[in-house]
Amino acid sequence: MVDLHGRDLLCTQDWSIEELEKTLDLAFEMKANRYDHPLNNCLDRRTFFMFFYNPSVRTRQSFEAAATELGGHAQFLEPKSMRLKSAKTAGETIEDAAHVMSRYAVGIGIRILETALEHYGQGHELLQEYAQYASVPIISMAHDKYHPCQGLADVMGYRMHGGKNLKGKKFLQVWGKGALVRSWCSVQESILINTRFGMDVTLAHPPGYDLDPEVIKMCEENAAASGGNFEIVHDLEEGYDGADFVYSRNWMTSGFYGEMQKNGVDAAKKKEIELAAKYDDWITTKDWMSKTNDAFFTHCGPVDRNAEVTDEVCSGSKSIVYDVAENRLHVQKAIMALTMGKK
Amino acid sequence: MVDLHGRDLLCTQDWSIEELEKTLDLAFEMKANRYDHPLNNCLDRRTFFMFFYNPSVRTRQSFEAAATELGGHAQFLEPKSMRLKSAKTAGETIEDAAHVMSRYAVGIGIRILETALEHYGQGHELLQEYAQYASVPIISMAHDKYHPCQGLADVMGYRMHGGKNLKGKKFLQVWGKGALVRSWCSVQESILINTRFGMDVTLAHPPGYDLDPEVIKMCEENAAASGGNFEIVHDLEEGYDGADFVYSRNWMTSGFYGEMQKNGVDAAKKKEIELAAKYDDWITTKDWMSKTNDAFFTHCGPVDRNAEVTDEVCSGSKSIVYDVAENRLHVQKAIMALTMGKK
Amino acid sequence: MVDLHGRDLLCTQDWSIEELEKTLDLAFEMKANRYDHPLNNCLDRRTFFMFFYNPSVRTRQSFEAAATELGGHAQFLEPKSMRLKSAKTAGETIEDAAHVMSRYAVGIGIRILETALEHYGQGHELLQEYAQYASVPIISMAHDKYHPCQGLADVMGYRMHGGKNLKGKKFLQVWGKGALVRSWCSVQESILINTRFGMDVTLAHPPGYDLDPEVIKMCEENAAASGGNFEIVHDLEEGYDGADFVYSRNWMTSGFYGEMQKNGVDAAKKKEIELAAKYDDWITTKDWMSKTNDAFFTHCGPVDRNAEVTDEVCSGSKSIVYDVAENRLHVQKAIMALTMGKK
Repeated sequence: MVDLHGRDLLCTQDWSIEELEKTLDLAFEMKANRYDHPLNNCLDRRTFFMFFYNPSVRTRQSFEAAATELGGHAQFLEPKSMRLKSAKTAGETIEDAAHVMSRYAVGIGIRILETALEHYGQGHELLQEYAQYASVPIISMAHDKYHPCQGLADVMGYRMHGGKNLKGKKFLQVWGKGALVRSWCSVQESILINTRFGMDVTLAHPPGYDLDPEVIKMCEENAAASGGNFEIVHDLEEGYDGADFVYSRNWMTSGFYGEMQKNGVDAAKKKEIELAAKYDDWITTKDWMSKTNDAFFTHCGPVDRNAEVTDEVCSGSKSIVYDVAENRLHVQKAIMALTMGKK
Repeated sequence: MVDLHGRDLLCTQDWSIEELEKTLDLAFEMKANRYDHPLNNCLDRRTFFMFFYNPSVRTRQSFEAAATELGGHAQFLEPKSMRLKSAKTAGETIEDAAHVMSRYAVGIGIRILETALEHYGQGHELLQEYAQYASVPIISMAHDKYHPCQGLADVMGYRMHGGKNLKGKKFLQVWGKGALVRSWCSVQESILINTRFGMDVTLAHPPGYDLDPEVIKMCEENAAASGGNFEIVHDLEEGYDGADFVYSRNWMTSGFYGEMQKNGVDAAKKKEIELAAKYDDWITTKDWMSKTNDAFFTHCGPVDRNAEVTDEVCSGSKSIVYDVAENRLHVQKAIMALTMGKK
Repeated sequence: MVDLHGRDLLCTQDWSIEELEKTLDLAFEMKANRYDHPLNNCLDRRTFFMFFYNPSVRTRQSFEAAATELGGHAQFLEPKSMRLKSAKTAGETIEDAAHVMSRYAVGIGIRILETALEHYGQGHELLQEYAQYASVPIISMAHDKYHPCQGLADVMGYRMHGGKNLKGKKFLQVWGKGALVRSWCSVQESILINTRFGMDVTLAHPPGYDLDPEVIKMCEENAAASGGNFEIVHDLEEGYDGADFVYSRNWMTSGFYGEMQKNGVDAAKKKEIELAAKYDDWITTKDWMSKTNDAFFTHCGPVDRNAEVTDEVCSGSKSIVYDVAENRLHVQKAIMALTMGKK
């Protein structure tokens, strides 16, 4: 029996395949029966805290809507006004904050990305510290390393359009140019969960855009365990060839943090934007899509149109970006119901 | 049969008299039966998004309360943190934002006023663009041109105090001095809806405070169709003479946008404040009210006391400003119930 | 019969012992039956406005959760964006704001502390002005003088751990060093309510940290009426000796306001921090606690660990800080149910 009550969710990698399948099954059920599912009252009068160290569009919208649809309420909180202790300022420790908030709420979501951090991994450590002291589940709403709710929404989208069994489907995760200097979290979550579900995952990016080696190693292990495949290429032809799903997205280089520490966030972004501008071919076009196995186009949103992907592809008949965005709501409802819903 | 489900509301002018009457009827019913009306559960667990490009007092309070009273939840969102695409920055297009938000919410309210815009009409265009792409209703929460919820709340107030049939009642819309440099939206909505309901509308302002000629033309057509009257005067005696309702309010000149583009928002406001200060008589006093037909005093709030109106009049026995403010809640509940409530 | 419907709560001193007892009884009941108490639906679809002139951590969290648990919704409002009238700017008067908000909501909470004020007492005057014009209850969410919800949560905690009858228990309210430059409100509320419930209250602080003389006088009167005791000492030995409860907390000197007016808030804080740094002994340690009657350690939070109290004491077996924090939720639910719940 799978029982997720009380469990944290920092990365899908922390949950078993059975636990992820149970979550996806419930998400599909909740989508089919949006306002009338038997678990629709499972957060009745309960509070879910959302901590946004970094702002967000759809994460806030979808989490707050998810809590509402389950009969509860998600509080929108910005830690900058929370008098928390830091290296520089007196204030409340995470130990105390986590203990007290566990008295008020049934769960806590945290979003923390690069610009609120000093080095890669620090956000993950912060979530782990909250998880250590809180007696209620800690759910990542995207942090520097992972974005589990996005990963589950992605898989739900692939199943909606590609069928339940994803084994053997070729999945292309391809770097895209653009000026948004994006986090690694959605991409790392994507290659982790897709290798676990047995897809043949190709990660394509220009030289210098390497992701976390620890994540790469986990992907290789996932592929070996699931009977799928994982490879990294720097060539677009190779990447698009025969793909069933294409997910293009910009991400920063590993040099971003150091540059930010040295010269500030604006300078670090400027440097990334200049570097990214060199890779003019790295945009998903109709031409590139013609080399695939009539692939679906996906993206976690917000899309940087005409940088990561052309309008033609993003608004085309094979684009599943709105469905994937909608799925955030359903998987988050399922996660909340399973980890913190009343019994 | 009037069916408003799925309809946008950018201006009362877009709705038929029958549709407005149905909305007002429901608003009166909901006022009479505030927490027990049969439609009180029509937003059960549903989300309404509120986009505040500009801040607000009672619009936010009354919309959020309206959703709560209907069993739903209104999310308070500030687009400045939403990474939306603009002329200067990469980000999400309105097309994508509207599509995705339609998956999460049953309706979207938008407030956007002068200081967030480059020219008059741009706010209206933005609402139209959201309406084009969203599959759920777009409701104006005040934009540069119109403020339909205020117009309906106004009419509801006149009926509460002046009877259901407003035909032939003299309505004075009079410019008031003050330092708040107000938008045209409430005033334009007021003269539009009041001419449609057959009132004899007099618009009084100093020279140079002309409103949108297109709106003026619609008012003339409305009056012709409803059997009412519409005239513009620059003389206070003529304005107050025999009025049944007096609505004083400051508004900016059409020069505000150009000045703001040229010298910034503070300089533009300063110029307007200096100009307005010349018209010392343009305040609703007991003396002016003595020339009316024992008129009711109304205002959309927040009132700039002792600039637009004296304390004596605003707190006097004929003032209906608090009732009109309360009506915002009731008409917004009715609008939500009719356009986006569950069936 | 105690009936609190419609009552304001600016300080526990304004309520009779019977009224406070009724509130505490209900708070204990609601704690025991958190999601199933018969009054759990008493804010059904009702709105509670929260005005945060100053930010907060647990006050916002606990009030918003309290409204949610009672079936209502608390709106998080920041007056800085509310176009309210002030000495310097045109805008809406408190008279108008209070009247209008009374039409939308069933109650209004207000938080306003030193840095938003010009002199001590001004925050209390503002709450009184709201109370004068609003037809719904005004609840202090901490203001310059008092913090009634904290005082009730404190007493609830002492009863949970020390038994219902607190008469004759020695309560030490002791100043603590630290860099947070805290308000007087929690401390003044604490010594007021504890003298009313008959405790032997010792207030210990370094010379120069005197609290409001009017509050001190009320404490003396309270002690006389309840059969308790009230004394002020400047010696730590005397303070800790035989105490049953120890509550350490930093607070500012009365010079803060003048300094802030003269040199700005940052300079005023700097001066307070430098002054506080001189009193190195004024921290609750295990050594000091060994001189007590095996006292419970309490604090209103957020705790400034290793300044006001050592980790050893704050995380020790006699610390009741998390219970007291949780009690904020229960007493606020009880206050809301009694003053503004539907009948």
